[in-house]
Amino acid sequence: MLPESYPMIGGDGPYSYAKNSEIQRAAINDAKTMIDEGIAKNLDIEHLPFDLNTFRIADLGCSVGPNTFIAVQNIITAVEHKYQSKGLKSSIPEFQVFFSDHSSNDFNTLFTSLPLKRRYFAAGVPGSFHGRLFPKASLHFVFSAYALHWLSKVPKEVEDKNCLVWNKGKILCTSVRNEVVEAYSAQFAKDIETFLYARAQELVSGGLIALIIPGIPNQTPHSESNLGPVFDLLGSSLMDMAKMGLFSETKVDSFKLPMYTPSPQELEGLVERNGCFSIKKFDVVAPSMKFNAQRCLMCFRAVMEGIISEHFGTKIIDELFDRCSAKLEKFSFSVDSDYSKENQLFVILKRK
Amino acid sequence: MLPESYPMIGGDGPYSYAKNSEIQRAAINDAKTMIDEGIAKNLDIEHLPFDLNTFRIADLGCSVGPNTFIAVQNIITAVEHKYQSKGLKSSIPEFQVFFSDHSSNDFNTLFTSLPLKRRYFAAGVPGSFHGRLFPKASLHFVFSAYALHWLSKVPKEVEDKNCLVWNKGKILCTSVRNEVVEAYSAQFAKDIETFLYARAQELVSGGLIALIIPGIPNQTPHSESNLGPVFDLLGSSLMDMAKMGLFSETKVDSFKLPMYTPSPQELEGLVERNGCFSIKKFDVVAPSMKFNAQRCLMCFRAVMEGIISEHFGTKIIDELFDRCSAKLEKFSFSVDSDYSKENQLFVILKRK
Repeated sequence: MLPESYPMIGGDGPYSYAKNSEIQRAAINDAKTMIDEGIAKNLDIEHLPFDLNTFRIADLGCSVGPNTFIAVQNIITAVEHKYQSKGLKSSIPEFQVFFSDHSSNDFNTLFTSLPLKRRYFAAGVPGSFHGRLFPKASLHFVFSAYALHWLSKVPKEVEDKNCLVWNKGKILCTSVRNEVVEAYSAQFAKDIETFLYARAQELVSGGLIALIIPGIPNQTPHSESNLGPVFDLLGSSLMDMAKMGLFSETKVDSFKLPMYTPSPQELEGLVERNGCFSIKKFDVVAPSMKFNAQRCLMCFRAVMEGIISEHFGTKIIDELFDRCSAKLEKFSFSVDSDYSKENQLFVILKRK
Repeated sequence: MLPESYPMIGGDGPYSYAKNSEIQRAAINDAKTMIDEGIAKNLDIEHLPFDLNTFRIADLGCSVGPNTFIAVQNIITAVEHKYQSKGLKSSIPEFQVFFSDHSSNDFNTLFTSLPLKRRYFAAGVPGSFHGRLFPKASLHFVFSAYALHWLSKVPKEVEDKNCLVWNKGKILCTSVRNEVVEAYSAQFAKDIETFLYARAQELVSGGLIALIIPGIPNQTPHSESNLGPVFDLLGSSLMDMAKMGLFSETKVDSFKLPMYTPSPQELEGLVERNGCFSIKKFDVVAPSMKFNAQRCLMCFRAVMEGIISEHFGTKIIDELFDRCSAKLEKFSFSVDSDYSKENQLFVILKRK
């Protein structure tokens, strides 16, 4: 059984998330225009029930920065522009920003690296975004980047005997068997529902949600997802190490990542089924930056090291990533081109 | 130059603040009645400008728990009672609690030890309470226990040559010279002013502040304060170690604690001079629990180890406290009886 939270590598060492999160940062840069436009078009500043002139923003799944600080600053600047464009410069509210992540997140690093010249009051909120984190109708803008593809748990069915055979050596739902994919997809649907239900209560009427979620194009099998090859490399490296006797194959079998990349169609359907939000924007975009496959692997390491160590111990980490890196050399052209596919879902939702 | 923040010992090891803060906990228990009565008498729930039904509480200088969790629960229970007593049970708001301390505080420990069954939404707020931490008029109740006696800095004048001579071997203003005491007192006055000024903006009109501050009785010279003997033991143990050549005497001379215990008269005068708050209660009480002097020393260690290590390095800590402990054996009767004097200021203020 995996723990329910998967903190990124804290601190600011060479393998830290703070130093290895350019993929996520590029996505945030790509999202800047979407956020600017989303706020300009959809934030009804005259009608939002502002409480005592404070505009409250939450970043859910913020990790340790610096990406979250950049994203939050983009949002604040866009809100200020909106006020200015309406001739309401003197009414610009104070901003309070809630940085939220699991309680195992490294909030100490987050807090000591907060920008000194920030124009907002900062707070940290520990807990899972699959439940309530804030009082009713207390938020005006919710942001979440590269977080909602984490499931609240690995679906039970995946630990079923048949599934284990079908998905042998895979740590994600990259199997060609529908049963495996469906189990992950059903868990994702449940998780999105609890996420949207909680946010529907926390946001004021007219409040906005901006989401960046790694996804797959419509009609693409998960076995051909762009993230698949890298995760399959991790899985096959783990199997190699099991065969060398470093740990048992059963240990690898019981290691599945609680992660799922939805298709646009799938996510759209889930938002509509929830019914509390109207979809104001739904873009599927390719990353604007190209990444070297080895840098990608470093970014994955910053994200995955915690969850892998939890299951296999910390000693295997260096060897595992050395092996992945060696395998990647052979595949790098294919990963580079896969990674530049249209694979990011940019969504703006408005609380009805 | 000492750093501007002095985190308590984090984690939950044998010397941690979490395991060595009974003095502070006893004060919080002693304060329960004051808080119950203060809320029952002074919280005008019909007139508070509640924003969207959320009651917001901040604990300033919360450290890592568990004391802060006990204090916050006492406050929430008292507010709920107030609603019940007015027949407004169905209108009890949701609670949002902000745990605030310097950004160097161990928020990771605080967050992972939050009570699981809490009836409030929790947030951490990093920063100094000598400046603004929250948006305007966003708080309903501010609590601060055993924190306001920390000054924002050691007064400059104390580093003056004459002062160093007068205060030789003392790490607090326990000198008999007025010049030393006046420098600390002036810094305390400045700090209370900035504290009250910030809180006056953050609290709603009618909002309450409850303070617990270690103090000294009126007309008591600081050289006879109840905390004096223990701090003087620390100072003289440091001098002994300097004489043994473990570090220079100059190193001891430049180590002064930014801490000041005011008299009731002094604090009352400062609140009145600020003018934003009316004093609803001002009690000077003796601790209800007796403490063994050696346990006192452990509590001091949890609070002081960080600031001492910062100046002298971590290696001297065990020897220093062993020496203090040995000295304390001789003085323990006197410290025990000093410590049971009326030395805690319990104050309730209401935002005008």
